[in-house]
Amino acid sequence: MRITQVELIPVAFPDPPLRNSWGVHASFALRTILRLHSEEGLVGLSETYGGEGMLLALGQAKAQVVGADPYDLNRLRLLIRHPRVFGAIEVACLDLIGRASGQPLYHLLGGRVRDRVDFSAYLFFKYAGDGSTSLTTGDLCGEVLTPEAMVELARWFVAEHGFRALKVKGGVLPPQQEVETMRLLRDAFPDHDLRIDPNAAWSAETAVRFIGETRELGLEYVEDPTWGIAGMAAVRQRVDVPLSTNMCVTAFEDIAPAIHSRAVDIILLDHHSWGGLRASQELAAICRAFGLGLSMHSNSHLGVSLAAMVHLAASTPNLLHACDTHYPWLEEDVLVGGKLQFVNGELGVPEGPGLGVDLDEEKLRVLVENYRRVHERERDDAAEMRRREHDWLPLRPRW
Amino acid sequence: MRITQVELIPVAFPDPPLRNSWGVHASFALRTILRLHSEEGLVGLSETYGGEGMLLALGQAKAQVVGADPYDLNRLRLLIRHPRVFGAIEVACLDLIGRASGQPLYHLLGGRVRDRVDFSAYLFFKYAGDGSTSLTTGDLCGEVLTPEAMVELARWFVAEHGFRALKVKGGVLPPQQEVETMRLLRDAFPDHDLRIDPNAAWSAETAVRFIGETRELGLEYVEDPTWGIAGMAAVRQRVDVPLSTNMCVTAFEDIAPAIHSRAVDIILLDHHSWGGLRASQELAAICRAFGLGLSMHSNSHLGVSLAAMVHLAASTPNLLHACDTHYPWLEEDVLVGGKLQFVNGELGVPEGPGLGVDLDEEKLRVLVENYRRVHERERDDAAEMRRREHDWLPLRPRW
Repeated sequence: MRITQVELIPVAFPDPPLRNSWGVHASFALRTILRLHSEEGLVGLSETYGGEGMLLALGQAKAQVVGADPYDLNRLRLLIRHPRVFGAIEVACLDLIGRASGQPLYHLLGGRVRDRVDFSAYLFFKYAGDGSTSLTTGDLCGEVLTPEAMVELARWFVAEHGFRALKVKGGVLPPQQEVETMRLLRDAFPDHDLRIDPNAAWSAETAVRFIGETRELGLEYVEDPTWGIAGMAAVRQRVDVPLSTNMCVTAFEDIAPAIHSRAVDIILLDHHSWGGLRASQELAAICRAFGLGLSMHSNSHLGVSLAAMVHLAASTPNLLHACDTHYPWLEEDVLVGGKLQFVNGELGVPEGPGLGVDLDEEKLRVLVENYRRVHERERDDAAEMRRREHDWLPLRPRW
Repeated sequence: MRITQVELIPVAFPDPPLRNSWGVHASFALRTILRLHSEEGLVGLSETYGGEGMLLALGQAKAQVVGADPYDLNRLRLLIRHPRVFGAIEVACLDLIGRASGQPLYHLLGGRVRDRVDFSAYLFFKYAGDGSTSLTTGDLCGEVLTPEAMVELARWFVAEHGFRALKVKGGVLPPQQEVETMRLLRDAFPDHDLRIDPNAAWSAETAVRFIGETRELGLEYVEDPTWGIAGMAAVRQRVDVPLSTNMCVTAFEDIAPAIHSRAVDIILLDHHSWGGLRASQELAAICRAFGLGLSMHSNSHLGVSLAAMVHLAASTPNLLHACDTHYPWLEEDVLVGGKLQFVNGELGVPEGPGLGVDLDEEKLRVLVENYRRVHERERDDAAEMRRREHDWLPLRPRW
């Protein structure tokens, strides 16, 4: 089997003004859809980061991919050295192999060990919608900038999707208000898993204080409370709540230093950034060998990414934490059949060949048109924030 | 695809009286050939350890395997908890998948990164042949119990097969004679890679002394000079020659202790014992993440195992050392077409679907008949040695 064409489709979709310690989401999120065409007329699909830099890097990889056999992933991984670029190619190759051989993608990952994959409610502090999105529920349009409003948002997520794990994107309100947020969430959801991710907005001292003050809430884990392996190690030796990371361990070369300094308990994998689905399985194997936990990270994404995440999660025995996803914040998907639906916070594993999802050409056209129309060419949450507050800086630590 | 039958075929083949620190090889080596039959009439092949215990364990796994889809390897790995048993099943499942999809096995491992795989000459001290084997060359039949005889043996291996790496199975003669052996080999083969494996027959002190006395020879590595992670760590901090192991790191749970105590530089993988080809790829990924080297271990084996080793080695980017193999000591293979042939110490990667090798039913029948006829039911090199020297004990350390 040979790949004859690499089609890169930049898309943009409306995104609410979600806050984080880097700033705020712009009105449109950028993504790239890949289609690999084979000489037999098959198409392999994947989705990855958006923006001009990613498009450029993907374009440069075309020379390696056109003419290659999609089975030759080890070679392509050596030749396409950026894990994000290779990861996008790899998923599309696996989709192509799955469609060619009639096998669901999870079979190419050794088979699924569960039928359904558990996701968390990804709860953001946010500004009121600016009209660019028309999310149908008032709950997702309104402002969420107090602990009480966050509890209401959580109630909507749980009622609508049945999530049993709640993740708060923290580092936005002063730490005392985020302590209060977690307390109110625990009162409202006594049996839910609770986690918070301030994206390293706290100093090590603030992190230790926050974790101490929320200790009785029994948090599932605290994600990246502070910056870097050294900072995380300093916090970790003073607390007994598990620490997770998607910031200080983001590549294979970060693992040894993190393990040697005992900086983290749980690594959040993301196949988009780690180099694809099989690289993610390598990370999972390393976590098993070293007794580390494993959870899954997400950026704003469409259903193609979500399908890949579900195949991976279903095939990863030691992925015991609910996966993060921004998907509920997405207004409309590009998939044939529309958005995938959570039931009890879970998604079933798509059963068709490959990823098991297909693009709706008409919906895709709308997202392509969006990309042409919007001014964003790279994600920059800080720049977006500075449009609202002229002097705002992404201080790290902020507290 | 469903597996309808698990066929276990115990076989035995003549083996020369090769010495090691455990004792001596018996007249026949035991192996097990597996054939998984699918409902479509396809057959997936693999080869693993022989003997009654292995047969029993493989037989117990049948209940999990019959009715399973060969793609469901993650499930089977959880259900068949012994890595040796699962590994044998996994290779046969991958062969089945390869034959069903028309893909060479290396494509199921992400594709090969090299066309040819480099092997080492596995040089044993040995007794003269006892007539049970009829190896056609006088060189392989004669006694090798002096440094000079070992050099002659090496000359035969290099002339016959073109090997560029020489591995001495040490721990047999007193260490000073093995120092002398390595010196004579270096004189005779100034450009070859030289390694020695005394199978932990030395104390840490003896190991440090041996390594000091052979330092100017530039050994590629010293394998398992002494017993256990603690012993290896003690040696390693006093020497600068790389230490490798197939004895103190033989399972995923050994890796963290070995890394934390900096006990080894190179891990020798063996897909038969680590849980199959994809588990071996996990080990390779761990070695990459921690900057460890990777080489490959071997037991006495037939060509089915060798084919699997070649597919794995060809698909493992960081396998930079020549692989060990006992294959030159094998008189006749069970493969259609006979023994695979080394050229310049290398083997090409079989290109047919799956493993790319097939069984010759007539030759197989001979090896099955051997198994019925021989008295061995488990490998026991020490018992065999004690038939020659009544009071012999596998002392560890011996020196």
